[in-house]
Amino acid sequence: MSKYSSEILNSIKAYTPGEQPRDKKYIKLNTNESPYPPSKGVIEAINKSEIEDLRLYCDPECKRLKELLSDAYNVRPQNIFVSNGSDDILNFAFMAYGKDGAVFPDITYGFYSVFAELHNIKYETVPLTDDFKIDTGMYLNRNKLIVIANPNAPTGIDIPLEEIEKIIKSNPQSVVLIDEAYVDFGGESCAELTEKYDNLLCVHTYSKSRSMAGARLGFAIANEEIIKDLEKIKYSTNPYNINRLTQIAGAVAITEDDYYKENCKKIIQTREYTANALKELNFTVLPSKTNFLFAKSDIISGEDFYLKLKDRGVLVRHFGSERIKDFNRITIGSYDEMVKFIEITKQILDEQRKA
Amino acid sequence: MSKYSSEILNSIKAYTPGEQPRDKKYIKLNTNESPYPPSKGVIEAINKSEIEDLRLYCDPECKRLKELLSDAYNVRPQNIFVSNGSDDILNFAFMAYGKDGAVFPDITYGFYSVFAELHNIKYETVPLTDDFKIDTGMYLNRNKLIVIANPNAPTGIDIPLEEIEKIIKSNPQSVVLIDEAYVDFGGESCAELTEKYDNLLCVHTYSKSRSMAGARLGFAIANEEIIKDLEKIKYSTNPYNINRLTQIAGAVAITEDDYYKENCKKIIQTREYTANALKELNFTVLPSKTNFLFAKSDIISGEDFYLKLKDRGVLVRHFGSERIKDFNRITIGSYDEMVKFIEITKQILDEQRKA
Repeated sequence: MSKYSSEILNSIKAYTPGEQPRDKKYIKLNTNESPYPPSKGVIEAINKSEIEDLRLYCDPECKRLKELLSDAYNVRPQNIFVSNGSDDILNFAFMAYGKDGAVFPDITYGFYSVFAELHNIKYETVPLTDDFKIDTGMYLNRNKLIVIANPNAPTGIDIPLEEIEKIIKSNPQSVVLIDEAYVDFGGESCAELTEKYDNLLCVHTYSKSRSMAGARLGFAIANEEIIKDLEKIKYSTNPYNINRLTQIAGAVAITEDDYYKENCKKIIQTREYTANALKELNFTVLPSKTNFLFAKSDIISGEDFYLKLKDRGVLVRHFGSERIKDFNRITIGSYDEMVKFIEITKQILDEQRKA
Repeated sequence: MSKYSSEILNSIKAYTPGEQPRDKKYIKLNTNESPYPPSKGVIEAINKSEIEDLRLYCDPECKRLKELLSDAYNVRPQNIFVSNGSDDILNFAFMAYGKDGAVFPDITYGFYSVFAELHNIKYETVPLTDDFKIDTGMYLNRNKLIVIANPNAPTGIDIPLEEIEKIIKSNPQSVVLIDEAYVDFGGESCAELTEKYDNLLCVHTYSKSRSMAGARLGFAIANEEIIKDLEKIKYSTNPYNINRLTQIAGAVAITEDDYYKENCKKIIQTREYTANALKELNFTVLPSKTNFLFAKSDIISGEDFYLKLKDRGVLVRHFGSERIKDFNRITIGSYDEMVKFIEITKQILDEQRKA
């Protein structure tokens, strides 16, 4: 760090994204990307004429995108905010709503604590239960910024909608942010509850179910006043933050929802195949409603399994923190990739037994 | 605003981007975009296979882009930071370096005061001289964050490099940010001074001379420690903020620099044609080293000229603030567009004389 920078910046620890090694070609099951490309319409829409138009600024209001998203989620365009990936929206929400502190689980998306520290927000982490569920009772009547990933990451476990509603209802003085990055793989979205509750902020991303991690597009659904807050931060930091091609791709993707729904179904099937195969190999596999599995073996440590997979060309994500160090988070790739993953896992376990 | 949001957010006024009306097709001379498309290689590089790969996250380190930029600017990759447009970098710099306050001109890029207010930074604005030049002596020995657009906007006037160096030298305790968004149209870049001074942050954009306003790409050149600060903010807010296609486009553009240099030459020629034509019509035209002109007429008010141009299908930018309300900022479009602009201007002045 330079000697010129602020104290907060000097003191915080930044987020560590999943590794992107380039030493060889990996089966990449470490960053929860989709194994399927964007839909045909998206690929056709990014044509020569649109690329030439990159000389022009993008629409800072993202009007077309908002119209289509509001139709798809049965809300008004004024209830939609779009930004450069859901991380961007989470950051804005911490900035806007953290003044009375924040509460989130001890095991969850690792970025929440980074946002809190960057914006100098006091935060409390609530331990997951022994079976790695979110202890929903602990989020009632807090009136601080509540941040819950539903389904949660990296556990993959979801919370029923009625539990989410209780949390929203019991915190009328503060914003309840439900991060639904993985909701399209079997969870229940709270998007419709935004009509009923002023304090609900429901955050989505195109990175997982819509095969656009590299396009950078996230959106939020909320009461109009919350959306105005988020727009104000965007217009006070970087109003043009979604580039032209991403706006086009994002709009077309909404109109081809059937394709993405079909992909989600395939991913769920592959997930069930993989979970069962891991259980047959005596893994503990948490019940996932996402495009990844969180699993541990009884005969190899989390770190060793991660390293041996990497050595054999498979990348998964291992988190060092004490409570989950025996686990790995395994993204659901294509069926063929997961067959290969199970095969390699068997080899690793066999070697482990012999050692 | 919602009742949940922070005091600062409630109190600030966000930036107002240039208007993007869609009621008809305008000659768009209001947001300083290039009249020329990106180079051929850029258009070819964004191909089907790259669009399919949007399913994968982008490289958060932007390695390829940094390598090419460091070659082009004769520094090391560790001296380059890339982000989602130069606004993003300016925002980060205010966040990191504003702790002792900030100083910038009264007439300059309107976003500086927004960043300062958002990050709760006390700032002082130094009046331009009577002939709209930056009063460089007023920035010496301040040891606050100094922010200077060189050439300045919306005046278009530049400062010689030796004056910039004096400012950098005399503020060793603070960062001096030189915003070179428009430097490729005739100004002198301070990029090489980053080797000599730890406290210099030189900010560039692809939006103007590189025809990529809609791609969202900006970069900064500075001492390695400054770059580390900026990376830390990026990794604490939105590490993947430059999408895959923009990273590819940005890299190819560097390798086709001749094309962009040729465009800059053409824009400078068209600027000189336009400036002379306006002077013949008795306009006061400030001496521009940018891709725009700042000009006022002695027979029509700035606002009336703006409105009458808009009515006739030409968009320019008018700023309401007292000192510059007689002026308009006119982006240099293609030669044909500027001939048309002059023609329409003549008509407006003729009508004005008759009225």
